[in-house]
Amino acid sequence: MITFLPENRRCEERIGDTLLDLALKSKIEVISVCGGLGACGKCKVRVVKGREFLSPISHKERSFLTIEDISSGYRLACQAKVLKKGEIEVEIPVTSRRGAYILQVEGIETPVTLSPSVKRICVKVRRPTLKSVKSDHDLLLEALKTEARSISISCLRSLPVVLRNEKWEVSAILYKDEIIDVRSKKAKVLGFAVDLGSTKLAGYLLDLETGKTLGKTSRLNPQVRYGEDILTRITHIMKDKRKLSVLRALLLKAVNEMIRELVKAVNASTSDVYEVVAVGNTYMHHSFLGIDPSYLALSPYPPVVRKALTYDAKEVGLTINEGGKVYVLPNIAGFVGADCVAAILATEIYKLEKPCLMIDIGTNTEIVLNDGKGLFAVSTASGPAFEGAHIKFGVRAMIGAIESVAIRNCDVLYRTIGNGKPVGICGSGILDAISQMVEHSILDESGRLNENICKELIKRNEGVKELILVGKDKTAINEDITISQKDVREIQKAKAAIATGIKVLLNNRGINSEDLEAIFIAGAFGTYLDPLSAIKIGMLPRVPLVKIHQVGNAAGTGARMCLLSDYMKRKAEDVAGKVNYIELAVEPYFQEIYLDSIKLKEYSV
Amino acid sequence: MITFLPENRRCEERIGDTLLDLALKSKIEVISVCGGLGACGKCKVRVVKGREFLSPISHKERSFLTIEDISSGYRLACQAKVLKKGEIEVEIPVTSRRGAYILQVEGIETPVTLSPSVKRICVKVRRPTLKSVKSDHDLLLEALKTEARSISISCLRSLPVVLRNEKWEVSAILYKDEIIDVRSKKAKVLGFAVDLGSTKLAGYLLDLETGKTLGKTSRLNPQVRYGEDILTRITHIMKDKRKLSVLRALLLKAVNEMIRELVKAVNASTSDVYEVVAVGNTYMHHSFLGIDPSYLALSPYPPVVRKALTYDAKEVGLTINEGGKVYVLPNIAGFVGADCVAAILATEIYKLEKPCLMIDIGTNTEIVLNDGKGLFAVSTASGPAFEGAHIKFGVRAMIGAIESVAIRNCDVLYRTIGNGKPVGICGSGILDAISQMVEHSILDESGRLNENICKELIKRNEGVKELILVGKDKTAINEDITISQKDVREIQKAKAAIATGIKVLLNNRGINSEDLEAIFIAGAFGTYLDPLSAIKIGMLPRVPLVKIHQVGNAAGTGARMCLLSDYMKRKAEDVAGKVNYIELAVEPYFQEIYLDSIKLKEYSV
Repeated sequence: MITFLPENRRCEERIGDTLLDLALKSKIEVISVCGGLGACGKCKVRVVKGREFLSPISHKERSFLTIEDISSGYRLACQAKVLKKGEIEVEIPVTSRRGAYILQVEGIETPVTLSPSVKRICVKVRRPTLKSVKSDHDLLLEALKTEARSISISCLRSLPVVLRNEKWEVSAILYKDEIIDVRSKKAKVLGFAVDLGSTKLAGYLLDLETGKTLGKTSRLNPQVRYGEDILTRITHIMKDKRKLSVLRALLLKAVNEMIRELVKAVNASTSDVYEVVAVGNTYMHHSFLGIDPSYLALSPYPPVVRKALTYDAKEVGLTINEGGKVYVLPNIAGFVGADCVAAILATEIYKLEKPCLMIDIGTNTEIVLNDGKGLFAVSTASGPAFEGAHIKFGVRAMIGAIESVAIRNCDVLYRTIGNGKPVGICGSGILDAISQMVEHSILDESGRLNENICKELIKRNEGVKELILVGKDKTAINEDITISQKDVREIQKAKAAIATGIKVLLNNRGINSEDLEAIFIAGAFGTYLDPLSAIKIGMLPRVPLVKIHQVGNAAGTGARMCLLSDYMKRKAEDVAGKVNYIELAVEPYFQEIYLDSIKLKEYSV
Repeated sequence: MITFLPENRRCEERIGDTLLDLALKSKIEVISVCGGLGACGKCKVRVVKGREFLSPISHKERSFLTIEDISSGYRLACQAKVLKKGEIEVEIPVTSRRGAYILQVEGIETPVTLSPSVKRICVKVRRPTLKSVKSDHDLLLEALKTEARSISISCLRSLPVVLRNEKWEVSAILYKDEIIDVRSKKAKVLGFAVDLGSTKLAGYLLDLETGKTLGKTSRLNPQVRYGEDILTRITHIMKDKRKLSVLRALLLKAVNEMIRELVKAVNASTSDVYEVVAVGNTYMHHSFLGIDPSYLALSPYPPVVRKALTYDAKEVGLTINEGGKVYVLPNIAGFVGADCVAAILATEIYKLEKPCLMIDIGTNTEIVLNDGKGLFAVSTASGPAFEGAHIKFGVRAMIGAIESVAIRNCDVLYRTIGNGKPVGICGSGILDAISQMVEHSILDESGRLNENICKELIKRNEGVKELILVGKDKTAINEDITISQKDVREIQKAKAAIATGIKVLLNNRGINSEDLEAIFIAGAFGTYLDPLSAIKIGMLPRVPLVKIHQVGNAAGTGARMCLLSDYMKRKAEDVAGKVNYIELAVEPYFQEIYLDSIKLKEYSV
């Protein structure tokens, strides 16, 4: 029997199970960035009792665990396997848990004229008589005075009973020119917009007749247990095609739960929901629809489908009204997905007449330039460093994560999310810290940590230089929280990827950074980062701060706009067709630009 | 344990099971015209052993069983219940079995120009390159040079793998403007047409590229176990709405089996079948699609839907290609269904410029008149007498059924189907017999049996006069096969219903029977009947025999035509919209005409 602490949750182990398997079985969500490959070191747990029943410490574990860690009983949950049955007790530290994340659902509110694809028409239907026997369907069409061209089979199935129960006065629900439901005149007409992020799902319940957002919710994308980055998940699928349906089922379950949660909160039912609008990167898009994403990982990285799609919710696997529809925004390319199209809609950069940029920062960062004449996009592999991965004390936005940092007289000031006791440092905090270290010359332009400035903050750990942000007496983890030389390198690579994308795009279109009218920063990390820090370390170009707009979950906003407006759907299709995708790897001087962008210094184009 | 003879098939009985339940459980198909209500007397079985374990003989049984029957152990299978467990042996006579039926699949062959909704286009698709990354779907559209507006989700799911496995040379299968499949260039493109008769299903497998019919099959509609007539089945559904899905599932299972049987015979697979075209009366139409048919049984008998419908095969519940479609022809009214529209197409009566009639004889008989200006239809409840129900020795078309009769010098000449030993008399035989009895004045115009002519043929049985067709020494059932006074009354009612329909239609449109250019007789019974007999007993009007065309399963032919031609589908929708349905019950003089039509004499209008 294994017991997980501090929950005291017990579970029967089987020989060969990893501690990660058993934790998931016990419904304790342990972080696994690499999907159980032993490559990220994020699933650290402490074996309190029964070490002798587990597999010996592996080479992979040794590269993530210090000697101290090992002697304290730390293991990587994905590597430690049960070899023999016995009483095992495992403590799961807060930093290895998913539970406490702050998930971003807020985004800018871009006004849109209400004209949803789903419409309700209340009608009084004539009854058939012996003198004039018409079908229920014909009488309904007569009352609707509409050119509805088809009727869903589910609607036909319920039509005769509903007409008679409701005494021939009903609401007909139309999706474009199809009748998808007939029900009581008092029916609600709701829609659900969802942003399918690689790590986070954000959902919005909308009243399609008032345009109001009735509720918002979010949860972690359950697919992260097969790898926090997309390529790991695709690799799982390439190795075993059946994993595609496993990953899809996990996702659909979560989305269906979000819908249920939101409708319940407003005393509605899932059958009141007539449309789901979904956005996501191309992988999430494919995985949501059950389309094999393998080729996204193979040069030349083609998506299977780019165009906008409308399917019956049943076909997709969503539990909404029987006749309900799912609309998925178009993709642009293999690494520029429907979420980017939605963000373009939400930021309205396609409308601006002067040059502007939209940057959606994530593991992949999509950058879209409107050069005043057209739209151009690149995708750049910025990696998960901003989300805390590959950073020694990196954590996601969660209670206790250090989110901003300032260095004053060799003293570190910091603020944590929710004012919790520090558990680690999240993206915006790391950015601040590095920017401040550059400012104080603790880091030089090349990123080398100078141990002679603010000596009291610097320590060496197994030969690697580290700057102490918070001493162990003040942290929740009984360890110093530091930024190491290695962490700085990770951030340099990540920010260089973004800067390279920006530079290539601007160069390609002959635009200078001072010509930029606006830079929109979308995505959760983008919401929290300090734009000045981002400029100082050379991630964003030097522009007046007033031109930088942090728009939060713009993809979710774009999805909501499409839910409320058929016109915005056409706009999405139109915009997606017009965005020119530029493949970074084939651009001249790509390598040179990237190497130059590694430097920690301001830039302009 | 119960044993059914002569198969020696054994089955474990439970207290409360009827012998009918147990026979069905043992896969022995016992005739049940009334659906187990004890109202038709067709499920006679002989209990050889273990009578003491069964319920006592009921009042219902007494009205169908003679004293001799009872002493020989005969019971009605639907009434005899197991009261106690024990060794029971039950013999099921050939006349109570369904197995040996002759099912009609042949129909006229009406030529049609090949232009199916399903089309295959063979293409060579360009591969994506880093310089020009397009989605698989976009590249396919480019190769197709078509304005395909949508692509099925199943097709998207298989698209990337198929393109690469087939080295980018594939067959794209389109349904109108939707891409429904992409597969090997060698793929077959098949379609299935089905006539969903109340008692019989007739299926046809077609090659949609050559237009050839590759195979035909038929089977009994398994719904007959819930009643051979439609109203009995609807009553089951009205009493318990769940029966709708039970009846639908039985039907779908049979249709799926027919498809599998036919594709197997040509070494094809169900995934080669891309479209199913279905026709049937309005009840069968609704039951096939899972639409509640209850209101068809309630005045004013409105259908739920009249218009032609196209749905995904998956939604309907048919196992063909994942992206396959089902097209269901339009209905005309509650009792004039899609099968009638198909028969109109097959007989092409809508094209003729001179008046003509199409009569599809069944339990309900549909009569359509083209008066030279428009199409007019009536439906008349002719009942199941022509199919042997309510006729003492009536049987369906089966081996040993007497199918034609002549009386010469008070001697009865007859022919049986398959030259089998006589087991009973089927519709065409009954019609001949009555016509011959009228000819020889054994029956007068009112239908009274005159026992003074051909005395040797007449006997009395419990007071009822009967004409002996075959003496018991020559029959397979060890009984005289007779036509009783009661049988004559049944046939009078049935033929009067048809004659009334014809007269009302012609009267309503001011057409005389001599104006008729042609009378098309469709349906199984219509194929075998002797038109002269039908004229002589006053079922059909007196017209020159050359004008009468027996067209067999015209509904099946019409379904095949729609499978092969998009134009015929539009024609079906056009024709169905133009047929004027006349409700017999509200026509003036309906009662008078009916009472006059009871007479056994020739008529003209």
